[in-house]
Parts: sequence; C-alpha cells; structure tokens
Amino acid sequence: MVTLDLLITRAASKKGPVVAVASAADRAVLEAVSGAIAKGIASFLLYDDENRLKMLIKTEFPHLLEDENISIHHADDGVQAANLSVKAVSSGWAHVVMKGNVATSIILKAVLNGEYGLRTGKVLSHVAAFEVPGYDRLLFVTDAAMNIAPDLEAKAQIIRNAVATAHACGVKEPIVAPLAAIETINPIMTPTTDAASLVVMNRRGQITGCIVDGPLALDNAVSEQAAIQKGITSDTAGKADILVVPNIEAGNILYKSLMYFANAKVGAVIQGAKAPIVLTSRADSAESKLYSLALAILSVK
Amino acid sequence: MVTLDLLITRAASKKGPVVAVASAADRAVLEAVSGAIAKGIASFLLYDDENRLKMLIKTEFPHLLEDENISIHHADDGVQAANLSVKAVSSGWAHVVMKGNVATSIILKAVLNGEYGLRTGKVLSHVAAFEVPGYDRLLFVTDAAMNIAPDLEAKAQIIRNAVATAHACGVKEPIVAPLAAIETINPIMTPTTDAASLVVMNRRGQITGCIVDGPLALDNAVSEQAAIQKGITSDTAGKADILVVPNIEAGNILYKSLMYFANAKVGAVIQGAKAPIVLTSRADSAESKLYSLALAILSVK
Repeated sequence: MVTLDLLITRAASKKGPVVAVASAADRAVLEAVSGAIAKGIASFLLYDDENRLKMLIKTEFPHLLEDENISIHHADDGVQAANLSVKAVSSGWAHVVMKGNVATSIILKAVLNGEYGLRTGKVLSHVAAFEVPGYDRLLFVTDAAMNIAPDLEAKAQIIRNAVATAHACGVKEPIVAPLAAIETINPIMTPTTDAASLVVMNRRGQITGCIVDGPLALDNAVSEQAAIQKGITSDTAGKADILVVPNIEAGNILYKSLMYFANAKVGAVIQGAKAPIVLTSRADSAESKLYSLALAILSVK
Repeated sequence: MVTLDLLITRAASKKGPVVAVASAADRAVLEAVSGAIAKGIASFLLYDDENRLKMLIKTEFPHLLEDENISIHHADDGVQAANLSVKAVSSGWAHVVMKGNVATSIILKAVLNGEYGLRTGKVLSHVAAFEVPGYDRLLFVTDAAMNIAPDLEAKAQIIRNAVATAHACGVKEPIVAPLAAIETINPIMTPTTDAASLVVMNRRGQITGCIVDGPLALDNAVSEQAAIQKGITSDTAGKADILVVPNIEAGNILYKSLMYFANAKVGAVIQGAKAPIVLTSRADSAESKLYSLALAILSVK
C-alpha cells in the first residue's frame, strides 16, 4: 500500500526540487520548511521582509541560519512575496509554490497573472490524499476546496488533475468514483447525470489513465460489500482510489469528517497550473504540511 | 451523554406504542420486529400476504407466532400494504409507519395521500442520530436522504423537524449548525447566505427551541479547538448537536463517511408527517433498525 510516509521517502529520492515560499516569516511555515529539509525532500527560496524573516529564523530556527537548503529573498509585503515566488517558478529557479502567511487569494492572483503567472488554461483544482485507518489504499478526494459548483467540463479537468497526482504517487490506473447520493441516474440530480457523462468520457478517451465508475454513493465507492449488497455489478465499485465530490460543500464535509471523526492523515496540493501549489493553512499539522510538500514534489513534471 | 442504547431504554418505558409495518414478509424486517419486541419497545401490526407472512414467521421466527405484540393483516401487494399501514396510523390504531420489503416511493405515496394519508403541509425530512466514537454527544444529521436541494424555507422546516427529534431524545436546547464549506458569508455560496438567514430566523422566533449558529465548516461545528483556531467567536461553535447539510450529496457523503470510516452507530427517522416514519434499508444492520424504531417511538406525540 502507498502510504503518506512512503510519499515522503519517494520525494526525498527526487533530485533537487526547489520550493518558493511566499511570506515565510511565520513560525508554523518555518516549522514545515525545517521538517522538509530534515527529511531531505526539498530546498527553499523564502520570500518575506528580510529583517523580520532573518530575526525569526535566528531566534526560533537557528539551525536553519547556515543551511545551504535555504535562501532568503526580500519582499516588501505579501503581494510582492507571492509575485516573486510565482516568478521564481516561471523562471525555472523553483518547482513548487508554497503559501506562507499570506491570503490564498493573493497567491492565486499571482498564479493566474497573464504575464509571469503559471496559467495553463486548465481548471485549477484541489487534490487531497488521505490515509484512512482501515482503508487499504491512499484515498484521493477532489475538489474539496477550490471549485464551488463545477460543471461537467470542470469536473472532467478536476479528474484529470487528480489522476495525474495519483500517477505521480505511483497509483498506475486509479479507479475514479464520481460521487452522488444514489448510484442510479436521476435526471433531477445533476451529480448522477454528470457521473454518467464522465464514465463515457473515460470510455471515449476524453479522460485517460484511469477507470471512471459512477455515479456511486460513498459506501458503494469504498466498500465492495456495500456495492454487492446494493446489487451493483462492477469490478471497480468499492475500490475507489479517487473520490470526485459533486460540490465544494460535500467535499469540505468529507474532508473534515475524515480528519475529525476517522483520524485520517492528509496531504493536499493545487493542480492544473504549470507547477503544483501548496496551500497549507494554520489549522494543518506540521505532519500534514510535510505530506503536502511531498505530494507537490512528486507531482513536479 | 444520550446514547442510542439509552434511547432504546427510554422508548421501552413509553406506554403502548404500535408500529404498522408495510410488507413485513421479509427476514431482515422480521428480525428487527423480533428485536424490538424483545426490548419491549413496541407492538406491531404486520401487513403482507397473510399466508406467506405466516409461513415465514413459522419457519424463521416461531417464537413470534403466539406473541401478543404481533397481529397479522392481509394485503394483496406492496401498495395495499403501504395504504393499510398508513390508514392504521391515521385511524389511531398505530403510531409509527415502518417500511418493510416495499419501495420507499410506495410508502411515501401512501403517506402523502390526501384522503387517508399523514400530510401536515410541512416538508418531510430525514433525521439521523449518530453516536460517533470520540464525540461527546448524540450528533443529528439532516437531511441526508429526502430533500435533494432544499431552499431556505425547506431548510427552516428541516431544522424544526430535527429540533423536535432532538427534544424527543432529551436534548433540551440543541445547537444547530447549518454547514457550509466556509464560516463566512460569500454571496455566491448559497449555503452561507441561507445559514445567515436561518440564524436570524432563530433570533426572530421563526425557528424555536434551539440555538442556530452558522455558517460553519464541519470542523468548526464539531471541534471547539478548530473554531478557536479559526478565530470564530461563539459560545456554540464546536458543540453542534444538529448538523444541517446544504444538499443531499453532502448529507449522504457525511452519513456514509461516519458509518464506514468513523465506525459510528446510527438510527434514523422521517419527520414532518403526522407520525414518524421508519424507512430502513437492506443495508442497515439489525441494531440500526432498532435504533430507528426507538427514535420513531420517542418522537410519537
């Protein structure tokens, strides 16, 4: 089984990945940076007010001061830090953008900048990789954080982004389950009809590198026994690698439910831009930030 | 803490509740009936083909044959069984309708019949009561199964139905959290604006007997620590008794996540009609059916 710790080990074997951190002068952010360096998974370009950042490192992370895996770059404020981080990636000096102590909207604005940003024309989407006690594989959930109510076209790209992430994690032909409240088609429930279209898009080569099987309710997606009990005839039901949620509320609730009630571990990354983006939040544990960095580094093309 | 087993104990102390079962000639249904009688929580009117039902009881549940808590009534088919069960309740002979081996749509059609049905003009909604390992109170989730995309008016009634259920379970002034993906108001995310309206409806006396606090993401609704970390100033955040999901997909996913990943126990009931309705499915455990019956019996006015 691919575990999140295995992703860290694999990320450590990648040669020379560099992460650009926007607004790095933050205890929790530097803790993640320090952890990643200790695991040998990346080196870092840190953007923030130079004096403040150096002072913080000196007092709280003195072992990083002379570390060759860190270079400090001045930015006047969060906007400039975001722009410089993104430019570092578009210039090829770095491979991953990481959000420090700056608003997500500022990072995304820099990422989407037409001149020096990281646009590809594709939908950006959030891909989370969960290790859930009792489930026998890594469980990817998408999109729990970026797209509010994706239409069919957006869902197709959300799946492509997640499939690329799964491949990067060593899951060769992931089983993708577009989730709905039921496993049959009901014309007034868009998640069911969208799921049908996604299944056929997969058969017709519009979505590749995976097997799409849906609509499925969550139980039929993750439990073979539940699928059998429902009379669902499918080789893939109950074995989902990737759960595609129909809307941001369903995704956010699933994400939080796995974290708070199922004691799952998670790493997450934004995909669809020219480079992976790590948007960790204050509520994330240091461990979770490390998993996110590993996921991003493995996703670097 | 109110547990589901405590609900069974309390239901057993209610005097004389009678449950009308539509299409009872089914092993799993009779197992639930047998369990409920053993716990002393109800007596049953069983509707189905008389010969088939008697034969099944004789071979599989012989101890029920002479049980005074059971009476058998002939119905030609599922539609008649549903109609007779509903009529038994509207006539006052029974207090709860239970779905046996018949389609949910047939039961609901009988319930909504204008002549002998159980309509109140209110929205019917599904209320599930979960016992989640690690959570210090019964957690009600609504509506995970009936209303696909409820509007504000429907959500208000869904809350009233859930609050009545919580009261019936001994939860005096439940804390109600309308869930969204974020805890701030975003005009393009209806779950957040609806939550704001529901909060004010509660303050203005349009929704009573509870404290409504939202929008909240699931983590802020069930974890005080997460709420504090997010800077949410509220006496009720993190202590939700009732989680109101924004749509059926989010609800179904939360329901299944609690069952499959968090090892939760659950009972559920349909509220809003003149009497509680129990819609158990084949996938429910015998224990879960018993909890649903207890929930329904406690909800009888």
